[in-house]
Amino acid sequence: METVSENACFGGVQGVYTHASEACGCDMTFGLFLPDEARDGPVPVLWYLSGLTCTHENAMVKAGAQGWAAEQGIALVFPDTSPRGEGVADDEGYDLGQGAGFYVNATQDPWKPHFQMWDYVAEELPRLITGNFAVDEERQAITGHSMGGHGALTLAMNLAGRYRSVSAFAPISNPTASDWGRKQLSAYLGDDESLWARHDASLMMREAGFDGPVLTDTGTNDQFIDLLRPEALAEACAARRQHATLRMQPGYDHSYFFVSTFMEDHIAFHAEALYAG
Amino acid sequence: METVSENACFGGVQGVYTHASEACGCDMTFGLFLPDEARDGPVPVLWYLSGLTCTHENAMVKAGAQGWAAEQGIALVFPDTSPRGEGVADDEGYDLGQGAGFYVNATQDPWKPHFQMWDYVAEELPRLITGNFAVDEERQAITGHSMGGHGALTLAMNLAGRYRSVSAFAPISNPTASDWGRKQLSAYLGDDESLWARHDASLMMREAGFDGPVLTDTGTNDQFIDLLRPEALAEACAARRQHATLRMQPGYDHSYFFVSTFMEDHIAFHAEALYAG
Repeated sequence: METVSENACFGGVQGVYTHASEACGCDMTFGLFLPDEARDGPVPVLWYLSGLTCTHENAMVKAGAQGWAAEQGIALVFPDTSPRGEGVADDEGYDLGQGAGFYVNATQDPWKPHFQMWDYVAEELPRLITGNFAVDEERQAITGHSMGGHGALTLAMNLAGRYRSVSAFAPISNPTASDWGRKQLSAYLGDDESLWARHDASLMMREAGFDGPVLTDTGTNDQFIDLLRPEALAEACAARRQHATLRMQPGYDHSYFFVSTFMEDHIAFHAEALYAG
Repeated sequence: METVSENACFGGVQGVYTHASEACGCDMTFGLFLPDEARDGPVPVLWYLSGLTCTHENAMVKAGAQGWAAEQGIALVFPDTSPRGEGVADDEGYDLGQGAGFYVNATQDPWKPHFQMWDYVAEELPRLITGNFAVDEERQAITGHSMGGHGALTLAMNLAGRYRSVSAFAPISNPTASDWGRKQLSAYLGDDESLWARHDASLMMREAGFDGPVLTDTGTNDQFIDLLRPEALAEACAARRQHATLRMQPGYDHSYFFVSTFMEDHIAFHAEALYAG
């Protein structure tokens, strides 16, 4: 693992690191914010999964998360959204291939050799981070934006017991039923739709739910709202009697101006779960 | 004036607008954050001047300022750092020409026809903004980063009575005595150094001072600190008995991770002055 940069930030350190990923078969880069409290021992951690076209960097510079994480003594991890590099398959579309890993393990060519983002985010990167930094593997929470909200919700519901809380900003909520989803799930996983179900937050909510609190925010002016299908997740949460707060925010769109506006609430929400008991 | 974008943000609106600038002889773009309170009437305003290589966009997306401005009911203006476009002179260096207007009125060719950033920021843009938005021209304050800190300090001291308070993040403090300054001032203003003096915050502090409070933050690990010369401004402030708080922040560098860390303090500082009396 190599240090790309480390910047003092809100009393802690915003680092960027690169490492040879076994899961993805290429070098991967991630951001890690460690609050001052990490000098004294392991701190709780909030994972932030980014959306289509993003790298590790977007949320790190635009979400305004570090100040609130510093206040709560929580680390933040910002993984990349896909494998990258010259030998890595790509597509002309912004919503497939590099920058669009969709947090699944691809079983189909040409994606299979590198696009193993589920394993990367669920297994390899947590091991790397808890093994090398003062981050407490017993106190993890997860959030994300758009495609990253999809990733956060599906990881949380599939990996029972891993995360104490899950939240999302404008998550892709029902990808098996929208163009942000069917395209990618068929490309990465093939045509057997039964294999897609665990990667659909609304279906997983019906099937499994989440053993902890759920928070989502979506803007009423989100330009992609028809692709996000928040109504499917809302219906599934209510049907399951899931402990959840699903908010529609008047006037907000899909941008980081929206994400940063509600970041304080999300970090406070996770802090409550991370410091409980 | 045309609207480029408007995004809901912390209860207010983050807008981007473009207009034909008379001062600069080209189209100019600026960002304007209006808090919710601007619906009910004019609000105080804080100008944020950016540094070398920046556009109107950098601070708007990376400084984390809107949340604190919303809390205080203050508007934020993010001007560009230079004229731009095909007919506008430029230089190979990152620190001269487009992206590096230095907040002066150029008297030398090839810069003179467009590089009139002093007039743009001091006269034209304030007129445009107070004429078109609910912004109170009687309650203005100014801040900036690096080259923009230089701009903020020199505008504030030259335009007595205009701004109630001035602050700066890692300002270029003594440009007549450093390579971030001598190069640009000679290119834009010519070789007569007597004409440079009003564009040097440390010289202006000795000469005129500021009729209000001053706040600066500079990181002890700032990679450009030898070019910033905070010691010159510190000496001049103390010699003048200027009402000022000049802070050196251990471990911080020149990045927006530094700027965003101390943004809350700067906006609270300006709010106190803007809401006094």
